[in-house]
Amino acid sequence: MGRWEPGARERLERAALDLYVERGFEQTTVAEITNRAGLTERTFFRHFADKREVLFSGQAEMLESCVNAIVGTPEAVAPLDAVAEALQAVSARLEERRERSQRRQTVIAANAALQERELLKLASLASAIADALRRRGVTEPTASLSAEAGLAVFKVAYERWIGEPAVRTLADVIQDSLDHLKAATAAER
Amino acid sequence: MGRWEPGARERLERAALDLYVERGFEQTTVAEITNRAGLTERTFFRHFADKREVLFSGQAEMLESCVNAIVGTPEAVAPLDAVAEALQAVSARLEERRERSQRRQTVIAANAALQERELLKLASLASAIADALRRRGVTEPTASLSAEAGLAVFKVAYERWIGEPAVRTLADVIQDSLDHLKAATAAER
Repeated sequence: MGRWEPGARERLERAALDLYVERGFEQTTVAEITNRAGLTERTFFRHFADKREVLFSGQAEMLESCVNAIVGTPEAVAPLDAVAEALQAVSARLEERRERSQRRQTVIAANAALQERELLKLASLASAIADALRRRGVTEPTASLSAEAGLAVFKVAYERWIGEPAVRTLADVIQDSLDHLKAATAAER
Repeated sequence: MGRWEPGARERLERAALDLYVERGFEQTTVAEITNRAGLTERTFFRHFADKREVLFSGQAEMLESCVNAIVGTPEAVAPLDAVAEALQAVSARLEERRERSQRRQTVIAANAALQERELLKLASLASAIADALRRRGVTEPTASLSAEAGLAVFKVAYERWIGEPAVRTLADVIQDSLDHLKAATAAER
């Protein structure tokens, strides 16, 4: 099979997600994924380190885009707003793949080890965002708090968006969640 | 060795932490922990399911105390403040064990699998807190956002408290972090 099999990555992703949903993540082998996709294992391993990476491969790009968006945000934008805007910017990519996101979430929710991996990836994202804010001159603890709170908004918004009918964009749900958090923190005691 | 070895649990915890710091978590066996503590493996397994549980055993109580504190908070207290107060209430227990907390953090930071477990435990805590808020009549998404943002405050505060000289209490650092988050969300664009 040729080295540059067109669309190989997408076919492997689709086959893997189908099998993870049908049989469970643990029960699926790389051989089954490549059979389903009509590709070789060699092709699989050119694209993914292992069957877990099929679920997490987009996150390095997401981290980089987020960091770049924050570094490029005008100084006048408040830290938490800068984080929310960066997450809204990267959410466009998830937007196009709503159904994939839903299926991916189902697979991860069914497996504790995958949930732990997802949380570790989100924690790395928070730490990269805090670092980007510090490079913009935001001091501690505001940089870390804005990064963690921004990720909290993203996490809640993502679950709402996955769970509700496809009416609002993810960017809209992020904005709405941020507004709710602002209202909750501004509330008088 | 008697069934009710006095202070056995604490001796096992201390021996385990000493060994995890000296040799690394992976390299330490239960046999080494019980040797160091001068106790039997049978005693160890009466207190802990495995060597990982030595690091995570207090968290079920912490979750229960948090949930009870939130359910008992007066209605007039805003959701995020209720979460912060609950976390401040449980922080007294960590306060007494600052050195243990520091050593525990060192062990966890050195091991990706332990970090993942810690994040999963914090995520369970966030989800239990959101549930407690809903029982107090807080609606979604405010319940989930307040729980996640409250945990974000706790996470940042805990790391600050562990890392700085023992001047302020953890409850003080939580309050200060909450105030910083409020300032960051209230900031005009």
